[in-house]
Amino acid sequence: MLNETHDPALTSWVASANTGLSDFPIQNLPFAVFRRQGTDEVFRGGVAIGDQIVDMAALLKVSQRHAEWLTGPAHPADQADKVDKVDQTPRELAGLQLNIQMALQMNLQMALQAAAQNTLNDLMALGPVAIRALRLALSRALRSGAAQQAALQPCLVPQAEAEFAVPARIGDYTDFYTSVHHATNIGKQFRPDQPLLPNYKWVPIGYHGRASSIGVSGQTFRRPWGQTLSPGAPDPVLAPCKKLDIELELGIFVGQSNAQGEAVDMTEAEDHVFGICLLNDWSARDIQGWEYQPLGPFLSKNFATTVSPWVVTMEALAPFRVPFSRPPQDPPPLAYLDSPHNQQAGAFDIQLQVGLQTAGMRAAGQAEATICRTSYRHAYWTVAQMVTHHTVNGCNLQAGDLLGSGTLSGPTLDQAGALIELTTGGKHPLNLPNGEQRTWLEDGDRVVLRGWCAREGAVRIGFGECAGAVLPARTVKAA
Amino acid sequence: MLNETHDPALTSWVASANTGLSDFPIQNLPFAVFRRQGTDEVFRGGVAIGDQIVDMAALLKVSQRHAEWLTGPAHPADQADKVDKVDQTPRELAGLQLNIQMALQMNLQMALQAAAQNTLNDLMALGPVAIRALRLALSRALRSGAAQQAALQPCLVPQAEAEFAVPARIGDYTDFYTSVHHATNIGKQFRPDQPLLPNYKWVPIGYHGRASSIGVSGQTFRRPWGQTLSPGAPDPVLAPCKKLDIELELGIFVGQSNAQGEAVDMTEAEDHVFGICLLNDWSARDIQGWEYQPLGPFLSKNFATTVSPWVVTMEALAPFRVPFSRPPQDPPPLAYLDSPHNQQAGAFDIQLQVGLQTAGMRAAGQAEATICRTSYRHAYWTVAQMVTHHTVNGCNLQAGDLLGSGTLSGPTLDQAGALIELTTGGKHPLNLPNGEQRTWLEDGDRVVLRGWCAREGAVRIGFGECAGAVLPARTVKAA
Repeated sequence: MLNETHDPALTSWVASANTGLSDFPIQNLPFAVFRRQGTDEVFRGGVAIGDQIVDMAALLKVSQRHAEWLTGPAHPADQADKVDKVDQTPRELAGLQLNIQMALQMNLQMALQAAAQNTLNDLMALGPVAIRALRLALSRALRSGAAQQAALQPCLVPQAEAEFAVPARIGDYTDFYTSVHHATNIGKQFRPDQPLLPNYKWVPIGYHGRASSIGVSGQTFRRPWGQTLSPGAPDPVLAPCKKLDIELELGIFVGQSNAQGEAVDMTEAEDHVFGICLLNDWSARDIQGWEYQPLGPFLSKNFATTVSPWVVTMEALAPFRVPFSRPPQDPPPLAYLDSPHNQQAGAFDIQLQVGLQTAGMRAAGQAEATICRTSYRHAYWTVAQMVTHHTVNGCNLQAGDLLGSGTLSGPTLDQAGALIELTTGGKHPLNLPNGEQRTWLEDGDRVVLRGWCAREGAVRIGFGECAGAVLPARTVKAA
Repeated sequence: MLNETHDPALTSWVASANTGLSDFPIQNLPFAVFRRQGTDEVFRGGVAIGDQIVDMAALLKVSQRHAEWLTGPAHPADQADKVDKVDQTPRELAGLQLNIQMALQMNLQMALQAAAQNTLNDLMALGPVAIRALRLALSRALRSGAAQQAALQPCLVPQAEAEFAVPARIGDYTDFYTSVHHATNIGKQFRPDQPLLPNYKWVPIGYHGRASSIGVSGQTFRRPWGQTLSPGAPDPVLAPCKKLDIELELGIFVGQSNAQGEAVDMTEAEDHVFGICLLNDWSARDIQGWEYQPLGPFLSKNFATTVSPWVVTMEALAPFRVPFSRPPQDPPPLAYLDSPHNQQAGAFDIQLQVGLQTAGMRAAGQAEATICRTSYRHAYWTVAQMVTHHTVNGCNLQAGDLLGSGTLSGPTLDQAGALIELTTGGKHPLNLPNGEQRTWLEDGDRVVLRGWCAREGAVRIGFGECAGAVLPARTVKAA
């Protein structure tokens, strides 16, 4: 799975990428949709490098004038002799190399054109070959000493000057429930005698969520109103949510589509994934408790969902794959949800943390307090299993669709990704460093999710941040 | 609510509209998206009249050459003296009439331009004023004796030569559960001691469905595969669905959007609705039973959903409004879900029926057998209540979003809109007129939903049909 773009020795001529502190070294190269802040420029795709963005629309123009950023001169790492020469005449070999070069160029041009659009849907739809070709070309062009530096330098926009959009036009948003620890923690509160339902270890449970209210990091939203029934009250009331919560999740953007009626096999599932972002699935627990039977969460979840602007490609995540296994006492997945690759390398060790900054902390100039640290490696179902299960009935996933992982709680309570778990249903408030307490979110609270991957022998890559803040409930004429 | 477009005395110069048998008399004028069958023409909006379609793209061109279809000569019914003349000088009056005329023309032009697009989203987004203006202009231009006949005649395309598309790019699809009879019938099977959950009479229960797999009438789909756990079996298996069902529903297309964070009051709710179509929410009951706890239906519903091509506007439905009331022993709706208008005229008496044609019946040239007859008037929650509840938390509905009513079962079992009810969970198969029996759908079965409105003193209008058929499950490498 690894290729030259992961070489830890690579550095970039964009110096801020080489500090060891940036989320965006040359080994990462995630995609976003952006424009310069406070302008009415059109949004377009961009790729992060250090504290800069390579503007894909600008690069597309450059590539029309300077074909060399695509075609050469090749970087020293690009060794033509990688082509398998066995049993080929020099003439056949030359033809083969020409074909490869032409195919590479076509893929690159398509990918670059798609990446310059105001959503990443077209790029996502192209599938992994074209996206890898673009990523490899960018890696080569951004390396220290690359001949393309002069042509690319004018395509850089500082991240500090950018504003972002949701990376794709999300046709459908599906939220899964892949953390057995989250399911168990929540289940204990609702069903102490049967925390985990019988289907959990067989079915990657998921449901459809709301696409229209998904916003990008920086999103603010009003505390939702909703119907709730207080314990002991005879009738429900309409009131602003009193139990506002977060859910620490990852968002998986679908790449190439599958046709309606066709299932995606486990061996091909990851070819239908473009990449991964951070996702906060804001939740109104009191509304959820009253509304969710029998058809699942609805208004308790669909008022706002926040994603990070940067989508880290599956290829960038390859060095951080880990084996996927289940406790030996658990049933093995049914055959359609199993594969040797999934067992050996189907999971990702993505470190995750949640920061909470109250209005008081902000006024005092204090950074957010970390209230949870965990890893995606603890999930009970993998990305490939989500895709395969989602399509086993013939459901058509489309480029730009978003799959949420569900709250990614780890095995211990300090690794829980939601306040309902961290506070045991509100019984044990969190103590924040400035002396404040939190059971549920209060108006003015700002929540920041962060994620990164690090291991011996690989360069650390990050996801940037996914931030959102709670505004007071709207005032209404009559409750 | 009634205006001249409902006048039962109106007839059209399109003779097939005047038979009394057509779903599409001049009092209806529903919208669809269509093109000529077997061509690669672009899809565009159309309006049904008798057995013809007024091609909105063609009409847009005509209107650019012949402004008179918009501006005059006015139909005899168009009496200028409808403007309130009290306290106005002739000069003021002339100015007012000019302003009204200009506003009308601007609305009309915007609406016509929007209706000519390849989805109806832009038209839906314009809101009721512009849509009513277009509908009124079409009504006047299509009337017997209208001077616009010569200009409009070339814009007609026979419905028999058309193929249709889903009328809008559906951003989000929400399915409600508004029939208390359906909820009770289903509940009895799952929870004999508590058929109706405590929240039902307070909360218009709904959940998000799948937009990507919604198709237009004529849709065929493969029987879905899925995980099921048979009674008594130790482990679940992956297999083709054995309990494939229909759900007779109406689909409500959202018109103008509300901003995220803003709720839509009951008094304004219907201004956010464009119109209503037929909807079949195909359901895999065995998959549903195993997967739906705790987050609701997912793969059991998202493999296919079929809508009728024609969307009947709220204005066309106005003569068929009926009072909305609840059994006196039930709690009144909370204040945010109540309004005098909703009580007096919030419901619609839309007659509905389900036809089933097996492959055997088709081979023998037999028409479908009617297996259910009911009316939308039995629903427990109205269209306005669905919109208001959906937005009370600030959730943003967008033009082209689709709301399903949920299965519209009536008070008696022969009025049930799903096989799971009609056969009491599969216990009592249906006897079809040709001697066949059906417990669940079999491969080759074709289901046709029909809907219409009729009452004394109004001209009957219809919804056309919503048809779909079941193909065999796909063959797979390994189950």
